[in-house]
Amino acid sequence: MSNLISYPSSEKIYVEGRLHNIRVGMRRVLLTDTVNIVDRQRIVEHNKPVALYDTSGHYSDPAVDTDIRKGLQRIREPWITARNDSEQLRAFSSQYGNERLEDSSLDAIRFPVRNMPRRAQEGKRVSQMYYAQQGVITQEMEYVAIRENQLAEELGITTHITPEFVRQEVAAGKAVIPANINHPEAEPMIIGAGFLVKINTNIGNSSLSSGIDEEVEKAIQSCKWGGDTLMDLSTGKHIHETREWIIRNTPVPVGTVPLYQALEKVNGNIANLSWDIYRDTLVEQCEQGVDYFTIHAGLLKAHLPMAARRVTGIVSRGGSIIANWMKIHNKENFFYTHFEDICRILSQYDVAVSLGDGLRPGSTADANDAAQLAELYVLGELTRKAWEHHVQVLIEGPGHVPMHKIRANMDEQLRHCHGAPFYTLGPLVTDIAPGYDHITSAIGAAQIAWYGTAMICYVTPKEHLGLPDKEDVRAGVVAYKIAAHAADLAKGHPAASVRDNALSKARFDFRWKDQFNLSLDPEKALEYYRIGNLNDASDHCTMCGPHFCAMKLSKELVTTEQCIL
Amino acid sequence: MSNLISYPSSEKIYVEGRLHNIRVGMRRVLLTDTVNIVDRQRIVEHNKPVALYDTSGHYSDPAVDTDIRKGLQRIREPWITARNDSEQLRAFSSQYGNERLEDSSLDAIRFPVRNMPRRAQEGKRVSQMYYAQQGVITQEMEYVAIRENQLAEELGITTHITPEFVRQEVAAGKAVIPANINHPEAEPMIIGAGFLVKINTNIGNSSLSSGIDEEVEKAIQSCKWGGDTLMDLSTGKHIHETREWIIRNTPVPVGTVPLYQALEKVNGNIANLSWDIYRDTLVEQCEQGVDYFTIHAGLLKAHLPMAARRVTGIVSRGGSIIANWMKIHNKENFFYTHFEDICRILSQYDVAVSLGDGLRPGSTADANDAAQLAELYVLGELTRKAWEHHVQVLIEGPGHVPMHKIRANMDEQLRHCHGAPFYTLGPLVTDIAPGYDHITSAIGAAQIAWYGTAMICYVTPKEHLGLPDKEDVRAGVVAYKIAAHAADLAKGHPAASVRDNALSKARFDFRWKDQFNLSLDPEKALEYYRIGNLNDASDHCTMCGPHFCAMKLSKELVTTEQCIL
Repeated sequence: MSNLISYPSSEKIYVEGRLHNIRVGMRRVLLTDTVNIVDRQRIVEHNKPVALYDTSGHYSDPAVDTDIRKGLQRIREPWITARNDSEQLRAFSSQYGNERLEDSSLDAIRFPVRNMPRRAQEGKRVSQMYYAQQGVITQEMEYVAIRENQLAEELGITTHITPEFVRQEVAAGKAVIPANINHPEAEPMIIGAGFLVKINTNIGNSSLSSGIDEEVEKAIQSCKWGGDTLMDLSTGKHIHETREWIIRNTPVPVGTVPLYQALEKVNGNIANLSWDIYRDTLVEQCEQGVDYFTIHAGLLKAHLPMAARRVTGIVSRGGSIIANWMKIHNKENFFYTHFEDICRILSQYDVAVSLGDGLRPGSTADANDAAQLAELYVLGELTRKAWEHHVQVLIEGPGHVPMHKIRANMDEQLRHCHGAPFYTLGPLVTDIAPGYDHITSAIGAAQIAWYGTAMICYVTPKEHLGLPDKEDVRAGVVAYKIAAHAADLAKGHPAASVRDNALSKARFDFRWKDQFNLSLDPEKALEYYRIGNLNDASDHCTMCGPHFCAMKLSKELVTTEQCIL
Repeated sequence: MSNLISYPSSEKIYVEGRLHNIRVGMRRVLLTDTVNIVDRQRIVEHNKPVALYDTSGHYSDPAVDTDIRKGLQRIREPWITARNDSEQLRAFSSQYGNERLEDSSLDAIRFPVRNMPRRAQEGKRVSQMYYAQQGVITQEMEYVAIRENQLAEELGITTHITPEFVRQEVAAGKAVIPANINHPEAEPMIIGAGFLVKINTNIGNSSLSSGIDEEVEKAIQSCKWGGDTLMDLSTGKHIHETREWIIRNTPVPVGTVPLYQALEKVNGNIANLSWDIYRDTLVEQCEQGVDYFTIHAGLLKAHLPMAARRVTGIVSRGGSIIANWMKIHNKENFFYTHFEDICRILSQYDVAVSLGDGLRPGSTADANDAAQLAELYVLGELTRKAWEHHVQVLIEGPGHVPMHKIRANMDEQLRHCHGAPFYTLGPLVTDIAPGYDHITSAIGAAQIAWYGTAMICYVTPKEHLGLPDKEDVRAGVVAYKIAAHAADLAKGHPAASVRDNALSKARFDFRWKDQFNLSLDPEKALEYYRIGNLNDASDHCTMCGPHFCAMKLSKELVTTEQCIL
């Protein structure tokens, strides 16, 4: 039995597909009855269970054994093989990857199971975008359509999200299903303005800290609290092995910034970076199963003088590395000059490209400046190129932006990037709150997601100060789930308010446990409630005591006697 | 020496008035130099100190003795007496207040010093609004003008905030200076859309918890982290005595909901509430020095059926109490029927009225509904009545509101309340995050403050779950300082970005301590930094290690050699 993740009063359910033989996992929260006394009659009202979007995969299914040393079930493997457009390779294609696999000194830390990689057959295209453009509704597309609906039809709510709608959005590049054929453990999910707002979490060690076990634990924590995708930003030792453990054990798409590993391969010496080393790194990661790569291909030599005039220069790690490489060699960004080569590689595995914003503002003073916008325009140009190769595209956005300049970011992205989904880091709406930047950025993220950003990248309380630990991941994810859900409500997603309304009704009924079980973090809610409630507070609000409980008094206005639970 | 509150690398400074003999306290953060190596030359750049708005009063002045048992210095007393329009009374006017003072069983918990109250002389008006309408720029008005500017003129920044502008805004009712003549310990501050966004904090015990010492400690914590006003919402025992300790020791305006105490006086039996008991409570609190009262005078009998149809009914404590009173007696709200009497009392002490929103939505489902708006229109009507008595007015607002419905709240308030400052609780943009509602509500608060709300009432992580402790107060205040400051930036307050820019420059320079000292919570920033930094990280960002530090790399783009600090 797996119990790495459990939620109170919740059951794991699966909804079957109609087009395909698929089972879509969800969480269903069971509620107690509402009981009111009206005219001395006990009126009992049944409260329907609430189905929730669930990112925890098999970890929350008590019927499935999970084992970190074996990895998750490869649920997409039969779908991928049945398509007969990819082949399993007999060896890895990356020179570096093969060296790592042959290095016996790494045996102790290497992931125990070896899965041989798949690649598109010669002349075949394997991306969800390609299938969609051919009119094919894949298993992945039906999966996300069911998943996005959260059983709304059981409540009589019809949404616009059908498998055919998913296909159209993916075909048009307006939505991305990150789904490397070498990460069949991941449950399909979709990123696009027409869908629920998604959140990305970043984990990863640096040369200063954190081992493999801890990173896997953070990855699972991220999925527990609701992270939709996960970026492994490791820069320290054993990047290859750490990533393998993470991918094999993560039920959500995994992203990376391949440049980080390429730089480790040259011992941090930027001058020695080359296209060959980078290309080998791409292949290595494609065959491990990374679902999307951040590539800073829009930062050009011509932009560097603009960045030099800023308060905080370049704050993107990838951006600053490639900027220095350009300066050292006096050459154009090789991500840009080799962009078609990159797309050819990615298209063989269905790895999406997340076009990085190396010139995102690192302070509110630098927001929306000429450097930032110049890069954005290049990202729009690269989007079209990637689409020619049927490579799915995300566009990364800022950063630090004061509220009145947020809307312009969305507008410019829409104007120049042809509808590709926007994926922003926050933005942070002020610079003055280190230690609280999960809040500073959730304020901006909620707004930009409301305006149409498809995915928001979380920020933890340790941003600007250190690497997040497990509790920071929890704080960051929950802050971003709040922002994403607030945006879903504001955008009028038809099923988004079901959870709010069920929770608010529970609150008004003093069904405390139902309230907690429906909340984003039931454990925290219960913990805070217990601190304040040495006495039984079942029929009044715990803040105010019985005389001053507004909800109790308000209920008395409606019912004629006090409700007794 | 007082060291109840201290800030690192900061000095307490005072700016003198030009019109009046006043000294306005501020905090000034001292910065280290920027040092860059360019072409092997050491280039040193001096960084000017940054003046910050300071709510900590004398607690942060090492030159002043403070003693909780004596109370703060009564800085406004000479200004008030010199006006010669009020008189010191020989006895308190409240029957209840006098009984409490004569009760020897309360000697042990009573505040040790007794200050006799002042009241307007017969026929005289003592409110800041009245003075402003007479063309008088009071000490309070000049004080807030200096305070709002934060020494911007030293940086060559001219703002629109002059003493005359303050006078005009107060005269027009667009801004409020809460300044009871019986709370001369408070430093003047102003609440209005044309000024810096302010935050209110709520403290107070209930019958379930918390003693006087703890409440005074929370009050001082609130001022330390930046709370602009403080509401004492105590509902338990010893409300009178608790409030006296708080007022005498609080350098910011104090607000209350007098109904809470009135209900305690009738042992929680709503049926026994009466105008006489309430009137005596108003007088009692006016003479103690409460600066503003929340009064739920806009919730009328006709509104009750509207509230009964809601998901969460009435969630305002005061609103639900008066609603039940109306239902029991089948009478109109006595706050409404006695509103002119209330104004006559308040005008004798310059207590502002904060017109409570008893029908604020307690769930996103109830946002902007007919009940809420019906009450708002009545608040507009009452605003005009209060102004006839020269009573200053704030309008309270919601509550739980999804993002797309926030703007309408501000628009309706502007349309119906004649420019009186809006003062909102959040709003919370979703219902699903108990335990994190400081974040949920900061998202909404930042937006509504940007749209023009003058003061935002904080929410702590314990909202919906229990009473806040000292750490919750800190978390709530900092979250709201973020929201308020983000709104100041978005509104384009000319001096608001000085702090952001200074902090961001320090960040880019790896002047870690300057970065922390300029932040909203230097202690937290330093704590998080230390966790991640067993090694010296002075020349690179602590998240990424030296190879991957974007700021380090970016600096190298500009300077020719690595900066050595």
